[in-house]
This record gives sequence, structure tokens and C-alpha cells, in this order.
Amino acid sequence: MNLDLERDFPTIDWESHLAARTQGMKSSAIRELLKMTQIPDIISFAGGLPAPELFPLREVEEACRHILREDGEEALQYGATEGYTPLKEFLATQMHKYGIPSKPENVLLTNGSQQALDLLGKVFLDPGQYTLTGEPTYLGAIQAWNAYQARYHTIPLDNNGMIVDEVEQAYEQALEDSGKPPAFIYVLPNFHNPAGTTLSWERREKLAEIATRLDLPVVEDDPYGQLRYEGEDIPPIATLIPERTIYLGTFSKTLAPGLRIGWIVCPEALMLRFVQAKQGCDLHTGTLAQYVTNDICQRGLLKPHIQQLCKIYKERRDTMLDSLAEFWPESCSWTRPEGGLFLWARVPDSIDTEEFLRKRTLKEKVAYVPGINFYPNADGGHHAMRLNFSYAPPETIVEGIRRLGVALKKALAE
Amino acid sequence: MNLDLERDFPTIDWESHLAARTQGMKSSAIRELLKMTQIPDIISFAGGLPAPELFPLREVEEACRHILREDGEEALQYGATEGYTPLKEFLATQMHKYGIPSKPENVLLTNGSQQALDLLGKVFLDPGQYTLTGEPTYLGAIQAWNAYQARYHTIPLDNNGMIVDEVEQAYEQALEDSGKPPAFIYVLPNFHNPAGTTLSWERREKLAEIATRLDLPVVEDDPYGQLRYEGEDIPPIATLIPERTIYLGTFSKTLAPGLRIGWIVCPEALMLRFVQAKQGCDLHTGTLAQYVTNDICQRGLLKPHIQQLCKIYKERRDTMLDSLAEFWPESCSWTRPEGGLFLWARVPDSIDTEEFLRKRTLKEKVAYVPGINFYPNADGGHHAMRLNFSYAPPETIVEGIRRLGVALKKALAE
Repeated sequence: MNLDLERDFPTIDWESHLAARTQGMKSSAIRELLKMTQIPDIISFAGGLPAPELFPLREVEEACRHILREDGEEALQYGATEGYTPLKEFLATQMHKYGIPSKPENVLLTNGSQQALDLLGKVFLDPGQYTLTGEPTYLGAIQAWNAYQARYHTIPLDNNGMIVDEVEQAYEQALEDSGKPPAFIYVLPNFHNPAGTTLSWERREKLAEIATRLDLPVVEDDPYGQLRYEGEDIPPIATLIPERTIYLGTFSKTLAPGLRIGWIVCPEALMLRFVQAKQGCDLHTGTLAQYVTNDICQRGLLKPHIQQLCKIYKERRDTMLDSLAEFWPESCSWTRPEGGLFLWARVPDSIDTEEFLRKRTLKEKVAYVPGINFYPNADGGHHAMRLNFSYAPPETIVEGIRRLGVALKKALAE
Repeated sequence: MNLDLERDFPTIDWESHLAARTQGMKSSAIRELLKMTQIPDIISFAGGLPAPELFPLREVEEACRHILREDGEEALQYGATEGYTPLKEFLATQMHKYGIPSKPENVLLTNGSQQALDLLGKVFLDPGQYTLTGEPTYLGAIQAWNAYQARYHTIPLDNNGMIVDEVEQAYEQALEDSGKPPAFIYVLPNFHNPAGTTLSWERREKLAEIATRLDLPVVEDDPYGQLRYEGEDIPPIATLIPERTIYLGTFSKTLAPGLRIGWIVCPEALMLRFVQAKQGCDLHTGTLAQYVTNDICQRGLLKPHIQQLCKIYKERRDTMLDSLAEFWPESCSWTRPEGGLFLWARVPDSIDTEEFLRKRTLKEKVAYVPGINFYPNADGGHHAMRLNFSYAPPETIVEGIRRLGVALKKALAE
């Protein structure tokens, strides 16, 4: 048994061993970009990161202490796939207040909202099947569903969110192209990632009517709904058609992403399928992380924390909007989000935002995500970019937007 | 917008909307059983739970405090899909000592070992493709791969683990039945779940030779390798053929399952595919849980903790073996594991262990997992059961095995 661990090993042709679905898998552009943007002094508007200096460190530490002293044996043990009951109860109550008819039996805890997207793929998507999404849409959803060999018909957005009048046509196209109705429609109703827009109440009502008529399940992904900086809350789509809506929530933006706690609210008749799928995926969501989250929620610490986040993120949004107006050429435009973490900027057609990033702005030490990454069929967004305003402090935002403005003006002058 | 949340909602025929793969998804028998066994006073040998009274609560609390005070902003933030670098470095060093040539680039942190099984399915399994497994085998693997519409050819076990001489025949059958080679062979080398057996060194060598000859990837699932109560460690299969082995490890049995921290060691050429798959699944493993685990590892607290676990679990194993000898009919037999959490017991053919559980032993307030759940094709194990000896304290083990013995004798006398 005297083996030399430093010896040379043969090379295996792994690709020939892999499942067909791996051909559609790609690394997330954002996560690759995040690595690239670890260049020192770079100003990155690329990530979707919350401001780390606002994490409630003391509250989390207290929660850890409480839990490990009072419920330690349960908090470190295996748990139910459905999630920790008190946290499910808390969420059901919160969701009910938010307008979604829900009991604890309608709630499934997930390993971040990304896992909910994966479970949707696993439970709904046959290879080659269509889903309907906005254009642009969240790239994490594309990544999750590409692994199930999904195809996409897309519906454009305007300043009031998805143009729901075009849903039926996209549905018909999917039906025609594949002989099957699309699996579901994916909607980001509030402070859309990446577009920054919010779906109006009128459109939510219309979408509910269309989805019901077409017997189309609705996935309502709402990571930012609690982060509204102005205007009135608009009730979720799930309040209109809870029987056909799968609502996704997360603590990643309101508490801390490192805990990896998200949740699904869905009809009970569908819940068993998500639970079965999740059992195969990872048995259950981290017990300690659920107990910590629950402790913070039950002590009433989440609401004031969110209020503080809203105050600070509003300042950062305003700083970014002001800086854009000050430093960018007039031929550019951008959305004005009422909440969330992102805005969407458009540049003149002479600038390809992917090339512009690679060839120019990284040298100027400033980064964003090129728009093409949010197009499921990679057929648009060439002259757009997503800018995050939650992560960097105001003075950094000013400097980063200034650098981008200088680079844009230079490129346009050539 | 004045909607009545208590109104009646229509019912949707969800099953007609779901992907074909959901037809193969079932709830885990064990997890359903765990619910059933929440009957008060029941003695359950069904779960695979570590003893909660041995969790290092103080050490975890200290780790939480350290981390939140020193690295809180990183520990609550999004992290790299690959995992937290210091923990990857620690694991690479440990794995190297254990006999597996590995660098941090060969290590991927997963949300428990169950996620590694899911990632294997996602990356390797086309619908209808075969894998080779032992018979019996770990039911969580079956559950993970059924969701990818896997099929199984199985290889029987004896007291020295998988009878590797039969691997080639199973490979040929898979090739014949599907026109494709099986995706991989799944092996539990140490203190097999559920069988309790350990694969001998001679068989590991032979398996390495066969796998190389057949160009067959090997999945080596080793959750219990550190929990050896007697005898000498046997080097992992990965020490022989690291170039074609995907090794799975976990902290669930050595530290705490509620943290959900497992890991994969695999060739670098394959790593990117697992990372891409994991990005779509959940972006990354919980950051706080990784930092806590790393803190405990780096402070050198894991090794003495494992030594304590081994001492206590050995006593429990011995208690169970003694009780079986004392209370069970002579017509029964069982394995004698040198480590791990489980043993496998066989009863006479007149007893079906599924029916016996349902009709008799639950009334006697004692539970186990019927053997059939560990047969991927549900075609065996009718007269066998898995017994866990890590969870219950010794006096409870004695009483539970006594109750089972009484019930067995009663059934045999009828």
C-alpha cells in the first residue's frame, strides 16, 4: 500500500462521460466577472451584493448564542425537508400580511432563492420545453433552467415592467414550436433584476387573467419586494391567483446572503413535488442558519433592519442617478428604480457593452454586467448594462460612474 | 385591491403540468418514517442521526463568536461556488494525508453530501442511463438519481463489501440493455450504509483495475471513514485511481449535520462541470456554516471530537451486538461493522420486514428501516433491516433490541 501520491496519473476524457444536459451548462458570467473584478482598487457595479457593512453582525452573534445554548441539539441536527416549523409559521404570517393566502403547509425553506429556481426546473421542465420570461431577465434563472435543457420565449419590458399584452403570443409560439404549452411564466414583479422596473397593478391583474385563461403557472420571484424606497407597495400577483402562483422569497437581500435562506410559497397540491425534489437535492436547508434567521425574525429585529437598509440604499440609488445625470453623455438613458439593488442603463448602438467592458472599462478599473447576459437566447442587450447601487458607498459610486462616463465619452468621440 | 384572502380558490391539476422525471420521484421512506416515529416513547433505529448530546455546542458557539467578530462581513456575504478557500485548503491537506492526491483546486464544498449525489446525477446521468451500485445501497443516492431517470444494475455484497468480481458482468448488462456504458459505479467503501461492511484492500485494488480497464468512473462515498472503532484504516479507492474517482466526504457525521457541509474531491478537468452545475443549483454552500466548520477544523478541535465520538459509538455498537446475541432468535443474523452508524440484520424468510414494521413493531414502539428501501430496483431486502446504533443511548438500545427480539419470536412462533 506504499503509493506515491506525487506520481503522474493518466488523463481521462471526461466530456465523453457526461450527460447531454451539460452541453447547455455555462459558468455564470457574473460569477466569473466577480473573480476578474478582484483586481485591486476596481470599482464593481457588477455583483448583486448587499452592503456588508450593514449586516446585523451583533444580532446574528446573539442569535447564535441563544440558539446554541437553548436549542443547540436541534439546531445542529438533521431537520425536516420542509423547513423549521417556527420559521415556516413566521413566513406564512408575513406572506399573509403581504397579501398571499398562506399557511405553514404552503411554505418550503430553500437553500437561497437560487435553489427554488433549480427545483422549478427539476419539477416542471422536460428537455426542450419552453418557459416564458421577460427580456431581459434574471441570469441565475437562465443558468438554473439551462441545466434542464429549457428553451425560452421572451416578452419585452418597458418602464411598467413586462408588457403582458404580449404574453399570449409568446405562449402560442412556444406551443407551435414544441407542441407543448410552456411550463410557466417567470416574472420579477418588483424592482426587476436587471431592469429595475416594477410591474404595475393593472398589468398584474391582466397577467392573472391571461394566466388563468391559458392555464399557465406563474413563477413570481420577489427578492427585493421589501426594499422599496419610494411609492406604494403593490400587492403580489399571488394575491390574485394564489392557486397557480409559485412565489419565491429570500432573506439574502434583507438579512444576509451567506445564510442561504430562501423560501417558496405554493399551493399545497404542488408542495409534495417540491419536497420530494429537494430531498434528492440536499435533504434539507441548513438547520443552524434557519434557527438563526428565525431567532432574528421572532425578536422583531428584521423590520427595523430593513428600514435602515432602505434608508441607506435609497441614498446610494439617488447618488447613482445623480452621478449618471452629471457624468454620462446625453445619448445614454437608464431606468429609475423605486427599490431594489439595480438599474439598467442603455448606451448608443455604436457601443457593445461586452467589448466595452473587456477592452476599456476594466482598464479604467470599473465593472458592470453587460446586458447580453440577461437575454436567455443571447440575442439582445448588446447596448445595455446592469449597474448595482447597493454595494459601493456613495463616494465610490460617484467615482465609478464618473469613470464610466469618461470612458463612454471617449468611445463615442472615436 | 380589496381582496379576500379567505375566499375559495380553484383547484389546478398540477400533475399534468409537471416534467416526466417527477414520475420517478418519491418521498424518502426514511424521512417519512422519521415522521411516523415521532410517536412518543418510540425507540427508533431508523434514522441515520448522530447522537445530539455529543454535538460540540460550546465549540460551535465559540466559532460563531470568533467569526462574526473577526470576519463577519465576509461570513454573511455571498461566497465563491467552489467554497471558502481556507476550508478547501484544510480539506485538501486532510485528503492528502488520507491518501488522496489533492490540491484545493480538487475540492468543492457542497450543501451536505446529498448535494454531491445530486450534482453527480446532473452532470453524469442521461434519462434511462444505468449506474452500477451495490445491493443494498444508500437510499439517498437512489432518491437523488431517480430524479434524473437513472436505471440500476446492482452488484451483491458479502462480508467484505461489494463482490467486485461481478462488476464487469453488471457493466456488460448495462451496455447491452441501453447501448451505453453505465455512467459510473457507486461504492461505499467503509462501514457501508446500510450493510455495515467494509471493502477489503484486495477488492479495492481489483475494482481499480476493472474500472480502469472499462474506463468507468468511480464514485467513492465515504461519510463514515473517520468513524472506525477497531482494525486498521484501509486507503481509499481514490488513492489508487485518483484520475477517475469522485470522492465524497461530509462533516455531517463527524461534526454536525445541521451545518450541511460536505465536499467532493475530483480531478480538476471535471471540477468545472460540478461548479457550473452547483451555480445553477444554489450559487454556493452557506458561508457562515463554512466559516464555522473551518474555525473548528483550524483550531484542531475536530480530531479530539472524533476520538470521543468513536469511543461512545463503539460502546453503542457493542451494546447493540450484545443485545442482538441475547434477545434475537438464532435464525437471525447480522453484520459486525468495524465503524460507522449502521448494521444490517437478516430475519427468516417467513418475515417481511416492511409488513413486520407496519403491523407489529410500531405497536411495540420500536422502528427500523426495512431492507427493500436500499434496493434500487425494489427487488430484494424483504427479509432484512437496517439498524442504527449511533443515536440512542445504550440502555435504550438494549430495550429496543429486546422489543424487536420479542416481536420476532412471536412472529416466528405463529
